[in-house]
Amino acid sequence: MIKLYGFAVSNYYNMVKLTLEEKGLAYTEVAAMPSQEQSYKSQSPMGKVPCIETDEGFLSETAAILEYLEERQPTPAMLPANLFARAKTREIMRIIELYIELAARRHFRHIFFGEALNEAALAEVRPVIESAIAALKQIVKPGPFLCGSQMTFADVYACHSFPYANAVTTKLYGWDIIAAVPGLKDAMAAVAARPAARKVDADQQAALAAFMAQNSGG
Amino acid sequence: MIKLYGFAVSNYYNMVKLTLEEKGLAYTEVAAMPSQEQSYKSQSPMGKVPCIETDEGFLSETAAILEYLEERQPTPAMLPANLFARAKTREIMRIIELYIELAARRHFRHIFFGEALNEAALAEVRPVIESAIAALKQIVKPGPFLCGSQMTFADVYACHSFPYANAVTTKLYGWDIIAAVPGLKDAMAAVAARPAARKVDADQQAALAAFMAQNSGG
Repeated sequence: MIKLYGFAVSNYYNMVKLTLEEKGLAYTEVAAMPSQEQSYKSQSPMGKVPCIETDEGFLSETAAILEYLEERQPTPAMLPANLFARAKTREIMRIIELYIELAARRHFRHIFFGEALNEAALAEVRPVIESAIAALKQIVKPGPFLCGSQMTFADVYACHSFPYANAVTTKLYGWDIIAAVPGLKDAMAAVAARPAARKVDADQQAALAAFMAQNSGG
Repeated sequence: MIKLYGFAVSNYYNMVKLTLEEKGLAYTEVAAMPSQEQSYKSQSPMGKVPCIETDEGFLSETAAILEYLEERQPTPAMLPANLFARAKTREIMRIIELYIELAARRHFRHIFFGEALNEAALAEVRPVIESAIAALKQIVKPGPFLCGSQMTFADVYACHSFPYANAVTTKLYGWDIIAAVPGLKDAMAAVAARPAARKVDADQQAALAAFMAQNSGG
């Protein structure tokens, strides 16, 4: 039995949870927040969410966790069978993570928590995301999922990165980056219609509502 | 036959090259610099170095390339056989890349090219690297390589990330991060003694000398 540590507002947590659900792996959820306390870092060494606990020990870093789950429970596969197609899927995962998610993340505190705008990031982030969107337009092969007829980790990353990143680009740059990639909106809808995603998304909405209530004034 | 695009000063290029050499895969090197020109981005969609060309097409993003090479030529293996040990190796790869390399990289232009110090980064980078070093101390199992008796991708990342990052931390923070991780220096020496690494490192030194000569005043 796998234990999943984190909270359902975290998009990385939800990537792992969606994968567990898609694969039908048994797991339990354990509430945890990112923490620099040594007690938590003994499980997740950077103090980040999520981490998982297996019979052999703890594991952190979403990309490492996803590959572990794929190897532990190969079916249903979240990577294509063909070696080159697998590699292109991982290339898309990396582009979404490094150049969409991490770039947009520099504005998350402003967009989602009302902190001051990071003026330096305003100019720096846009060209990175522009390059990433052009890259995705070039290499995704929608039909209906990002890498074809099979749902893959590329879709897992997309579904849990683009909504937040798009909130940033829409507000700061007047730019809908989901509409900018042909097939992306349909791929996200195809994932969202699946039972696994419906469960993850419902839990996320409930957690988000609770989180906002807890963190709002009043 | 694989074509490897890039230049031997790039540490990511050298991670791929070291893997090709270790695995005894046939490859040719094609000189390329990072570029936002469409002609290069048609091969490497973010314009980055390295990318490789296979019979099935181009592939970029070092982490995706390394996994592809491992699947294409499984022996000698650069990941452990045990699933959990594979996952811990990938966790170490990610920690080195995201929290050592990418953090220190914010100072590369200052340290290696004489540009002005980024004062904001000075304060932001150190705690990230401190956390990463503490994480590595916790999870590496040296003997003599970072994950035990077998050379893995964790060593590949370490050998081509730590020398540059350590130049940054030594100069800016008076802190030797290689000495800070027990076993790391020995693991790096164990890799450096191998024929594959000797070739990569010799080519890197020659390229670095040519690069410095070309970019120095006259």
